[in-house]
Amino acid sequence: MTSHRTSDSADPSRPLLSDLDEDELLRQILPGLPSGPAVLLGPGDDTALVEVRRGAVLATTDAMVRGRDWLDEWSTADDVGRKLVAQNAADIAAMGGRTTALLVTLAADPATPVAWVREMTAGLAAASREAGIAVVGGDLSSAPEGTLMISITALGDVDSDPVLRSGARPGDVLAVHGTLGWSAAGLLLLQRDSADRGPDQVSYHRRPRPSYEQGPLAASAGATAMLDISDGLVRDAGRIAAASEVQLAVDSALLRDDIELLAPIVGAEDARACVLTGGEEHSLLACFPSLQLPQGWRAIGAVRAGAGVTVDGRPATGGGWDHFKD
Amino acid sequence: MTSHRTSDSADPSRPLLSDLDEDELLRQILPGLPSGPAVLLGPGDDTALVEVRRGAVLATTDAMVRGRDWLDEWSTADDVGRKLVAQNAADIAAMGGRTTALLVTLAADPATPVAWVREMTAGLAAASREAGIAVVGGDLSSAPEGTLMISITALGDVDSDPVLRSGARPGDVLAVHGTLGWSAAGLLLLQRDSADRGPDQVSYHRRPRPSYEQGPLAASAGATAMLDISDGLVRDAGRIAAASEVQLAVDSALLRDDIELLAPIVGAEDARACVLTGGEEHSLLACFPSLQLPQGWRAIGAVRAGAGVTVDGRPATGGGWDHFKD
Repeated sequence: MTSHRTSDSADPSRPLLSDLDEDELLRQILPGLPSGPAVLLGPGDDTALVEVRRGAVLATTDAMVRGRDWLDEWSTADDVGRKLVAQNAADIAAMGGRTTALLVTLAADPATPVAWVREMTAGLAAASREAGIAVVGGDLSSAPEGTLMISITALGDVDSDPVLRSGARPGDVLAVHGTLGWSAAGLLLLQRDSADRGPDQVSYHRRPRPSYEQGPLAASAGATAMLDISDGLVRDAGRIAAASEVQLAVDSALLRDDIELLAPIVGAEDARACVLTGGEEHSLLACFPSLQLPQGWRAIGAVRAGAGVTVDGRPATGGGWDHFKD
Repeated sequence: MTSHRTSDSADPSRPLLSDLDEDELLRQILPGLPSGPAVLLGPGDDTALVEVRRGAVLATTDAMVRGRDWLDEWSTADDVGRKLVAQNAADIAAMGGRTTALLVTLAADPATPVAWVREMTAGLAAASREAGIAVVGGDLSSAPEGTLMISITALGDVDSDPVLRSGARPGDVLAVHGTLGWSAAGLLLLQRDSADRGPDQVSYHRRPRPSYEQGPLAASAGATAMLDISDGLVRDAGRIAAASEVQLAVDSALLRDDIELLAPIVGAEDARACVLTGGEEHSLLACFPSLQLPQGWRAIGAVRAGAGVTVDGRPATGGGWDHFKD
C-alpha cells in the first residue's frame, strides 16, 4: 500500500494549538465563518458592528465545558459547535426573536489538537449558516491542562415586544413545539452503551435543532409567555409559573405520544422521566390565550390560578442539574 | 480576646462553590449588579434586551484565565473584575462608542471559594457602575480542577460611524491619550518582587482605568483611525498601519517624558521597552488629520506613505504575547 498524505496531516492529533501562533490559527478559522446582512463590521477591528432593526437588541450567553457539557467519547467537535449555536439561538427564539450574530470565546489547553478547534468551528459555522446567523467576533485564550471551553454570546432582533416568562394568565393554553425528552433519552442510551436502540434520539442529544423560526411565529400568534426547555419541562414550566404567578397544569394524557415513542427505547418509566424532566431539549414551551394554536404546536396543559406546576393535578418538581453541587 | 463571627464566615476560603446550588449563588451575586437606562430587560429571562440608539450595536468579547491573565498572588478577585471591565470597555471606546451593557460568563472549579466569586463580581460591578455600564446577563459553569476563567461580552452605542483601524491617511498625526508602559512596568516590578518601587504602576497593572469617554471625544474630533493599546504601542500601531495601508512613524523624542518617568523605577532600557512594547495598557492610540488634537491627547508621531511602524526612522516590531505558543 502507498502511504498517503492528506492536505492536513496524516495524524489528526497534530498539530497542537501550541504549534501555531494566534495569527496562524485565526487564518485557519476566520475564512469559514458566515457573515450576513446584519453585519456592518465583522471580525478584525476592536469590536463588531451589528445592525439592530427596532431600537433594542436581544443578548444572551451560554457556555459548554468539556467533561461537564459534553464528553469527547460521545460528541464530536462538530457536534459541540452545532449544539452551542442551538443553545443560544433557542434562547433568542424563546423571546420571539431572530438571532443575527454570535461572538465566540475559546479557552483551550495548548495541547488541544488544532483539528478539534477547526472541526468545532466548522460545526458552529455550518449551524449558524443554516440558521442565517453571522459570526462577528471572538477571543482565543489558553487554559490549564485538560480544559476546553467555549462561550457564546448571541445577539438578536425582535420585531415587537419580546415574549417574557411573566405574561401567562389563567385560562391560557400551555403548548409545546418540537420533541420532548429526546435529548435525555439519547444521553441515557449513550450512558447504557446502546446508542443503536435510538439513533434519532442520540443524534438529537448531540445536535439538537429546535425550530428557531417558531419563536417569532409564536410571538405573532399572541404567545403570553415562552421559554426553551433547557432543564426539563417541569422545571422550566415552573419558571413560567413563578414569573407569571400562575399554576401550570400539565396533562400527561397529552404527552402519551411522546412517552410511547420513547418507551420501547429506554423503558416506560425512564420514557416518562425523559419527557417530564429531560433537559437540553431546547423545544419551545409557551402559553397562548386560546386553543387556536399556531401550526405545529400542541396543547399539553393549561394555565390556572395558583402556583407551581402540576402533572395530572399533583404538584411536580424535578429536572435540571446543578453545575457546582457535588 | 473575643472571637467574632462575621456575617459571611470566619474562614474566607469557605464556603466553596460546591457548597451552594446555582440559585443560592445567583442570589448572592445578582443584587449587586448595576442596571442602567439602556436596560429594557435585565437578567432572569431567556435573554436580556438592551436599547440601541442608532440602528446598530457594537459588540466585543474578551476573557481572562487564571494563571494566564492573572496570578492570585498579584491580583485580588476585585482587581480581576475591574480589569475585565476595562479590557472590554476600552475596545468599545476605541470605536468611538460608549459601553452600555455587559454579559459575564464564569467557568470555575467547584472548589473555588464563593468569596472569590463574590469579590470578583463586586469589582466588576463597581467598575461597571463607575463607567455607567449595566450588567445584563451571564452564565455559570463548572470547570476542571484548577480552572477559573471569566469571559465578558460588551455591547455599546456609537453616535456616528465607528472609528475603524483603516482610516489613517498620510499627513495625519499619530497621538495617544493616557499612560504608556505603566501596566508592563507594574508587571515587571511584581515579577521582581519590588512593587514598592512603583506603586502607581503596579496599581495600574492590576486595575487599568483608561478614559473611556475619550473614545467618543476623539471620534467627534475627527479621528481617522483608533484602537486601544492591548499588545504594545508598536504592535498595535502596526495594526493601524496594516489596516490603513500606511506607515506609522513614531518619534521617540515625543515619548521622552513617558520613558523618563519609568526609568528610575524599572531601569532605562526596560522603561523604553515598556513604553514601546508594553501591553494591557488600554490607553487609546489614534490618528487625527491635524495637529489640533483634543484636550489631553499628545502627538507621538506621524502617518506617512509606506508600510509598518518605524521608531525614529527605523523599522520596529515587537510586543504582545501569544496565548498558545510554548
